[in-house]
Amino acid sequence: MRPYDIIMKKRNGEKLTREEIEYMIMGYVKGEIPDYQISALLMAIYFKHLDAEERANLTDIMARSGDMIDLSPINGKKVDKHSTGGVGDKTTLVVAPIVASLGIPVAKMSGRALGHTGGTIDKLESIPGFKTSLTLEKFFENVNKYGIAIVGQTANLAPADKKLYALRDATATVDEISLIASSIMSKKLAGGADAFVLDVKVGSGAFMKTINDARELAKAMVGIAKSHNKHAVAVLTNMDEPLGIYVGNSLEVLEAINTLKGHGDSKFVELCVTLATWMCYLAEIGSFDECKEKVLNTLNSGKALEKFRDLIIAQEGNPDVIDSPEQILPISTKKLYFKASKDGFITKIDTEKVGIACNYLGAGRTKKDDIIDHSVGFKILKKLGDTVKNGEPIVELHVSNKSDVETALKLLNEAYFIADTPIESPNIIIDTVK
Amino acid sequence: MRPYDIIMKKRNGEKLTREEIEYMIMGYVKGEIPDYQISALLMAIYFKHLDAEERANLTDIMARSGDMIDLSPINGKKVDKHSTGGVGDKTTLVVAPIVASLGIPVAKMSGRALGHTGGTIDKLESIPGFKTSLTLEKFFENVNKYGIAIVGQTANLAPADKKLYALRDATATVDEISLIASSIMSKKLAGGADAFVLDVKVGSGAFMKTINDARELAKAMVGIAKSHNKHAVAVLTNMDEPLGIYVGNSLEVLEAINTLKGHGDSKFVELCVTLATWMCYLAEIGSFDECKEKVLNTLNSGKALEKFRDLIIAQEGNPDVIDSPEQILPISTKKLYFKASKDGFITKIDTEKVGIACNYLGAGRTKKDDIIDHSVGFKILKKLGDTVKNGEPIVELHVSNKSDVETALKLLNEAYFIADTPIESPNIIIDTVK
Repeated sequence: MRPYDIIMKKRNGEKLTREEIEYMIMGYVKGEIPDYQISALLMAIYFKHLDAEERANLTDIMARSGDMIDLSPINGKKVDKHSTGGVGDKTTLVVAPIVASLGIPVAKMSGRALGHTGGTIDKLESIPGFKTSLTLEKFFENVNKYGIAIVGQTANLAPADKKLYALRDATATVDEISLIASSIMSKKLAGGADAFVLDVKVGSGAFMKTINDARELAKAMVGIAKSHNKHAVAVLTNMDEPLGIYVGNSLEVLEAINTLKGHGDSKFVELCVTLATWMCYLAEIGSFDECKEKVLNTLNSGKALEKFRDLIIAQEGNPDVIDSPEQILPISTKKLYFKASKDGFITKIDTEKVGIACNYLGAGRTKKDDIIDHSVGFKILKKLGDTVKNGEPIVELHVSNKSDVETALKLLNEAYFIADTPIESPNIIIDTVK
Repeated sequence: MRPYDIIMKKRNGEKLTREEIEYMIMGYVKGEIPDYQISALLMAIYFKHLDAEERANLTDIMARSGDMIDLSPINGKKVDKHSTGGVGDKTTLVVAPIVASLGIPVAKMSGRALGHTGGTIDKLESIPGFKTSLTLEKFFENVNKYGIAIVGQTANLAPADKKLYALRDATATVDEISLIASSIMSKKLAGGADAFVLDVKVGSGAFMKTINDARELAKAMVGIAKSHNKHAVAVLTNMDEPLGIYVGNSLEVLEAINTLKGHGDSKFVELCVTLATWMCYLAEIGSFDECKEKVLNTLNSGKALEKFRDLIIAQEGNPDVIDSPEQILPISTKKLYFKASKDGFITKIDTEKVGIACNYLGAGRTKKDDIIDHSVGFKILKKLGDTVKNGEPIVELHVSNKSDVETALKLLNEAYFIADTPIESPNIIIDTVK
C-alpha cells in the first residue's frame, strides 16, 4: 500500500477500503505518513466525499485510536445527546436533569466554547465551586449514586480525530459532511453510550446554514450509528435566532434553572422536551407518547430541578444557586442596550454574529487558552417576528470593564434586520431523521 | 492574507489574484507556508483548475523564483524547442543541428531520462568524451562560436517549480493541465528564449493519452507564452508507437546520425523537418514554405550533419562518431529477439510499456541516482499496421549482463497486440496549435 495510490484512488472518485483508510489515518497518527499527503487526501474527500461504508470505517478507526469508554459498570441503557452547536444553546442543562430524574443514567462528557458557539462545561463552571474535571472512577461513582454526571472530556477520546481536525482547520477542509459526521460520531462512539440523540442545528447561528446540508449531516450520523448497531435519532432544530432568551455563561445557567422551575421560553421548552423524549424513547422506557408524558410530568413536578441540584451537590457546586440563582451566579449588573434604529419588524438575525458579539464581551474564546468571563452576556429582548419601535431595546448587554462594547454593538447592529413587513416566528423543530 | 482563505477561495472555484499566488508559492519556497497547506491548494487546483491569467501568473512567479537566463549576449532570435517526452524521442539530436546549420543560434538546456521516457542529455553522453556540463560562460562562448550548444540544466532554473513538482509527485496532483503547463513553461521562460516550439506527444507512450488532453495542454502552454509576449507553436505528434526505429541511448544517437545522413525513418524525418521548420519560422528567416525548403536543403546537403560534428567537437566528444557511429558508440552486440506468437497485424502498442521494458535492460532510470547503461536498447522491427508471421522478430534487444531480460520480454509481450484485421499506420503529425 502507498499513500500516493490511496490519494489518487479517492481523487478519481473511487471507494477506499477499510484497510486503506486505516493505513492512512493510523499512519498519520503514528507520524509515518506526512501531513501533506493527508491534507491532499482530505481535499480529495472534500470533492469526492465518502460513502456510508467509508464513513463508518473512518469513524470506527478514529474512535479506536484512543480510549474506548466502557459504560457497562453503569446499570441500564445509556443514551447520549449531542448538539452541533449554536448560540444560547443551554439545552443539556435542562435535558440531562429531566432524563436523569426519570431514572435513566446520564454519563455525559461535554465540550467547551469555541468559535461563536458556547460550551456546556464553561456554563457549568459559572456555578461557584462546580467541578467539571473528575476521575473516571469518580465519574462512574456519581452516575451510579446520583444518576447524573457531566464532565469535560478527560479521557483520551479519538485522538486521531483531534489530529485530523487540526489539519482540516488549516486546509479549508472542515465543511464536508462525511468528515463532520465521522468526527462527531468517533467521539460519541468512543464515549460508550448505547444510543444517541443528535440535535442538528440549522440556520444563521449554526455550522449548517441550510436544511439540506443539515439533513445530509443528520443522515450521515444516524447511518454511522446504525452501522455500529447503535440507535440514533437526529432532530433538526432552528438556529436562525438565539435559542431561548439568554446568551452567556451565568445567564444561560439562570435560564436553565428558570426553565426547570417552569418559567422557560416556550420554544426552548419545546426543544428540551422533544430531545428528552427521544432520549427516554431510545432508553426504552415507553412509547414516544408515554415518554413525552413522563418528561412533562417530571419537569412540571420539580423533580428535574431537584436532579439538577443533585448534580451540583455531587460535583461540589453551591446548591443555593437553585433557589437564588441571581444572587449566587456571577452576573454583571453593568448593563446597556442595543436599540432599534427605526420602527418595524425583526425579519432576520445573523445569529453567528450575535455569538461573536457576545465573545467580544468576554463570554467566549477565539483561541483555546482564552479565559472566559462568566458574568457577561446578552438578554435577547426581541426575536424573529417581533415588532420594534425606534429606540426600543433589542438586546440587553451585561458587560464588564474588559468588554469590547463598541465592537459588540457594531456586530449586533449588523446582525439584526428590521423591515416594514412582518414575518412569522419560525418553528423550533424542523424535522426528525431516524 | 491567510493561506487558509486562499485555499478556500480556490476550493470554491474562485480566481486567485497574482498576489495570492505569489504569497502561497514564494511563502512555500521560503519555508513560511507549510507543505500541507500547499498540497491542499494543489488538490483544490486539480479539481477547480486555473484560468489563463492564473496560469500566466503562476508560471511567471515560478520562473522568477530562480535564475532568469539572459540570452542577449547571443546574437539573433533565440528559439527553444521542448518535447513533453516519449519513447525513442531523439528529435533534438536532429532538429538542433538542422536549425543551427541555418544560422539560428541553438542554446539548449535539456533534461535527463526519468520514468519511461528518455533524455537528450543521457543520449549525448553515449558519445565518448562528450561533456554535457558547461559553465554558463562556456555555454555562451560555444553558441557564439559554433552556433550550437546543448547542456544539462546547470543554472538554478525555476526552483519553485522543482519544489512544487516534488510535492505534486507525492500527492497525486501531477496530472492537471494548468499545473503541467505552468511547470514546463516556467523553466522555458527562465531559459530566456524569444520563442518556443512545443512538441506535445499524444498516445500510449506519452503523458497525454488523448488528443483532447494534449490539445488542452498545448493551448495552455501557447497561452502562457503569449501572455509573456513570446511566440509559441505547439505541434501535437503521435506517440502510439516508439518514435523512429531505435530506443536506447547509443542506439538513438546512431539513428540521429543516420537521419542526418539522409537514411532516416520517414515518419521521424517528417517530425524533425516539421519541428525544425517551425523553429526557423519563429526565428523569422522566412515564410513557412521557405523555411521548410531551407530545412530540407540543409538536411540533404549534409550541412546539418556537419553542424552535429561541430557540436561534438565543441563539447569534447569523439567526432569520429559521425563517420563510424557503430564502431565508436558503445552498442552492446549481445542480441536477442522478441518474436510474434502468431500470424497477424500489429494493431496496438502500449508504448509506455516498451519504454519501461527498455529501462529493465538498463537504458533508463527509475530513481534519480540510477546509473544508465548507454549500450542497451531496442531496434523496433515492427510497428503499427505491419504484418507479422508467427515466430518473426518484432523487437531486437541489445542487452548487457545486468539486463533483466525476462521482465523486458514479459513487458514487450504485454505491450504488443497482434490481431487478424490490419490497421492503417498512424500519421506522425496530428495537429498544430498556434
